Amino acid sequence: MSKITAGAKNLITDIQGLQIGHAVDAGARTGVSVIVPDTPAVIAASISGGGPGTRETDALKPETLVARADAIVLSGGSVYGLDAASGVTSAMGAQGRGFATGAPKPSPIIPAAILFDVANGGDKDWGDTPPYNALGRTAYENLSRDFALGNIGAGFGAGAGGLKGGLGSASSVLDGKVKIGALIAVNPLGSVVDEAGRFWAQSLALEVDGTPEFGLAKLDGQMADATAHPMQGSKIAAALTNTSIGVVATAADLSVAEATRLAIMAQDGLARAIRPVHTPFDGDAIFVLATGAEKLAEADDMRPLALAELGALAADCVSRAVARGVFEAETLGDMQAYRARFED
Amino acid sequence: MSKITAGAKNLITDIQGLQIGHAVDAGARTGVSVIVPDTPAVIAASISGGGPGTRETDALKPETLVARADAIVLSGGSVYGLDAASGVTSAMGAQGRGFATGAPKPSPIIPAAILFDVANGGDKDWGDTPPYNALGRTAYENLSRDFALGNIGAGFGAGAGGLKGGLGSASSVLDGKVKIGALIAVNPLGSVVDEAGRFWAQSLALEVDGTPEFGLAKLDGQMADATAHPMQGSKIAAALTNTSIGVVATAADLSVAEATRLAIMAQDGLARAIRPVHTPFDGDAIFVLATGAEKLAEADDMRPLALAELGALAADCVSRAVARGVFEAETLGDMQAYRARFED
Repeated sequence: MSKITAGAKNLITDIQGLQIGHAVDAGARTGVSVIVPDTPAVIAASISGGGPGTRETDALKPETLVARADAIVLSGGSVYGLDAASGVTSAMGAQGRGFATGAPKPSPIIPAAILFDVANGGDKDWGDTPPYNALGRTAYENLSRDFALGNIGAGFGAGAGGLKGGLGSASSVLDGKVKIGALIAVNPLGSVVDEAGRFWAQSLALEVDGTPEFGLAKLDGQMADATAHPMQGSKIAAALTNTSIGVVATAADLSVAEATRLAIMAQDGLARAIRPVHTPFDGDAIFVLATGAEKLAEADDMRPLALAELGALAADCVSRAVARGVFEAETLGDMQAYRARFED
Repeated sequence: MSKITAGAKNLITDIQGLQIGHAVDAGARTGVSVIVPDTPAVIAASISGGGPGTRETDALKPETLVARADAIVLSGGSVYGLDAASGVTSAMGAQGRGFATGAPKPSPIIPAAILFDVANGGDKDWGDTPPYNALGRTAYENLSRDFALGNIGAGFGAGAGGLKGGLGSASSVLDGKVKIGALIAVNPLGSVVDEAGRFWAQSLALEVDGTPEFGLAKLDGQMADATAHPMQGSKIAAALTNTSIGVVATAADLSVAEATRLAIMAQDGLARAIRPVHTPFDGDAIFVLATGAEKLAEADDMRPLALAELGALAADCVSRAVARGVFEAETLGDMQAYRARFED
């Protein structure tokens, strides 16, 4: 059996037909990311945390009318960040993009999730006009197929346990095909590393140009110690509200129900990269975008097995995106970066 | 911060007030386990797999009438195994145990989940009378506070990826108190080890009497290789239907909603111990039993944080129970035991 390798960019945009835009308010220490498929893509979600903040997730259920999304918005700002999707909705609708209803303007379907970065020391003195509607519009204007990781977009103001969080991404190639891309804004209560700086997800790190895609050479091959106090490294001294949010993308022609199963399996990637996760203080929302450019399996009766394999890849890719988001982050205020803490 | 240690028995019955009974049909290569709290305990569930087989799980939701269970049944036998709970229901009701309704007999609340062991080579030629009703009754007669692991009860005929599965259990002590016990019948599509026999959950193994509770000394400290093909070691050659099922127990005075959050967090223990998991072919049902003997937290506003810590412990304990279930199993038919495969 072949091994998993990373895609050319090792980004979610290794999946063909996706663009991503970011916008940041550096003073407020917050930002927004928007993912836009070139044509509307099948959408599903799994929301597994105890403190989610989302929009349009009810419309994504298999039994509802809508099957495809025009965009997905990930935002900082807690409840205020949901307005970023309003900005993108207004901008896309004005361009005539969206679900055709017979009304003069179509209805862009833009599910969104927020993370809690409103106690990270940034200037949140925005009166009655939070910046998120404008940030959403700016992110939508910045669409691209390439982007940096760490302190960018929805991950700009994120914290991960006692470290600076960030935006992470990764992609997975199997049998010569890009199968999965993941994008996670990493802002959990729990930690992604043990006390020595060894990533929980270290065993999943792929080599890119001969070097593991995350982790320090001095810790190479060391297994993290998971027998410490379960809250070691967690963000329990500061505000308790958190949340990791993200998107898994695939070219497979998934149904909404299949995409929902993929989203559920993708949550296992958070479990393997973050400890603890899915707490009462985490939202942990993962969306799945399936562009449908490729068949999931040649024969219909092989679809469930192909879906199991795709889900396994999705979980791994999510774990790697989480670790990369923290590994690539820079210190912001009193949120210390991983490399500042552990690199000698 | 203190470290996690194992309880005196390293079994779910380290939580006070629980008994477990097992019954096996060796010829049919199947069995049943029943968990009975001394007094009805708060119950919740999380069902995260794509192929569950359960009973009474709708009644466990926070918005429903019933908050406490009289017993939980875990059974082999796929859909036929649900009858084990019928056997226990009849036996308990005849003893006058159960939810008082004003009817002459009370209604024992007995949630149940099954696993798929009906293609494991055992003699399933039971005509129109499957053995599970009788096995359920026998298991209920065998209640005890001690039990062996591996080929016993609901884990008797289980397979775990390409290895023999089994029944596993573990308990977790923190700050001098037994906080969590877990019992898992381990029968996943995915594998619990890499190709070299290194457990995915190895970093979670606690020392008991100076020895790690699972894993081979020759592999001590080695990190599993998670970059192989995602289906490496999975049970894809044989029948594809699988499922791990189990129970997490705590003495905390959880509400049904809190117990549900604990069950969701406990699923992360499956994620860390089994790859892949939560596939379309796995049921992955975890029940939570909360006896209520201890307060979750001194102050009400500290309950969510205490629940996060308890959930973190629950996930770890589930991972360890999974690994122990496979580590302690014996070869059965063509399902080779872990130690037969990897011990020299």
